[in-house]
Amino acid sequence: NKKKDFSFSNRGKTLEDELNETNEYYLQMGLAVIHKKPVPVQIVKVEYPSRSAAVIREAYFRTPSTTDYNGVWNGRYIDFEAKETENKTSFPLKNIHDHQIHHMSQVVKQQGMAFMIIRFSSLQRYFIMHFEELEVFWDRMVAGGRKSIPLQEIEETAIEVVPGAFPRLDFLPALQQLQMKHT
Amino acid sequence: NKKKDFSFSNRGKTLEDELNETNEYYLQMGLAVIHKKPVPVQIVKVEYPSRSAAVIREAYFRTPSTTDYNGVWNGRYIDFEAKETENKTSFPLKNIHDHQIHHMSQVVKQQGMAFMIIRFSSLQRYFIMHFEELEVFWDRMVAGGRKSIPLQEIEETAIEVVPGAFPRLDFLPALQQLQMKHT
Ligand SMILES: [Mg+2]
Ligand SMILES: [Mg+2]
Repeated sequence: NKKKDFSFSNRGKTLEDELNETNEYYLQMGLAVIHKKPVPVQIVKVEYPSRSAAVIREAYFRTPSTTDYNGVWNGRYIDFEAKETENKTSFPLKNIHDHQIHHMSQVVKQQGMAFMIIRFSSLQRYFIMHFEELEVFWDRMVAGGRKSIPLQEIEETAIEVVPGAFPRLDFLPALQQLQMKHT
Repeated sequence: NKKKDFSFSNRGKTLEDELNETNEYYLQMGLAVIHKKPVPVQIVKVEYPSRSAAVIREAYFRTPSTTDYNGVWNGRYIDFEAKETENKTSFPLKNIHDHQIHHMSQVVKQQGMAFMIIRFSSLQRYFIMHFEELEVFWDRMVAGGRKSIPLQEIEETAIEVVPGAFPRLDFLPALQQLQMKHT
């Protein structure tokens, strides 16, 4: 007779789990159509056993050329990368790749919304940072400056999303705010 | 001393090859940001040989929950499925899956542009059909009608894209037309 401890029911969930649940909720409610992109894999060898499904026997992980999530909300293209850190005082920029920055900058040029969702896992705090803010910190690093974004600067430039019970990470209201700030 | 026969240089290219080339051109020119989604794969076993890349040793193909391509063009979310047929007189609807129809209908409800690109490979003809047209033929089939769309009906409801040298399949002008027809 195992009792489920609801107060800890969110323990062990990755940011990806939380976002997938939230996106599934948005999809069911007709609020947004957002999906995580599959992990890109280079397939080398496939076996076709008779009477059963094909089995991939040799494949390699490829570097993604874009971000984790994209979709459409209220007529707008949205595109984001989700990142979590165990750090308590800053977000390390080494978590982000060049090609992701490049992709987000292309999206913004096409008038899409590009942003990053950051989870400070030990603090249970979540932030949405528009690409145009992220780019400033990225450029500062490239110019020889800090290799991380201090929490205080994140608090000043990003929108905090307070997690709830369900959906866990209701980020659409934050997008409404982003939209007003970055046309 | 092999001479390249340019008149046949496009032979053997799949529709996916042609679209990837075109999308790469659009990306380079800053005209649109459209990517093919990776094939979704369920990874079961991974080996980590020392000093070399991780090798996936057991994985299975999963059913995609969305369409092949999506992205942003000129502030609009675009989403499409690419299909080719060797047929000369009609497009068989069995090429399309339920969940793709469902996904496209969700996209249109969020005011995204959803459509299908059809290649009649033997005829070298290409058509762009908006989801709202496709849905009519789909519903007709579900109601017990034809299981394919006759070429003539495609000519009447879709926009033909005449292939060129480079980019091979310049479909953005057709999207401009779609946009005017289906706000
Ligand atoms: Mg990520
Ligand atoms: Mg396809």
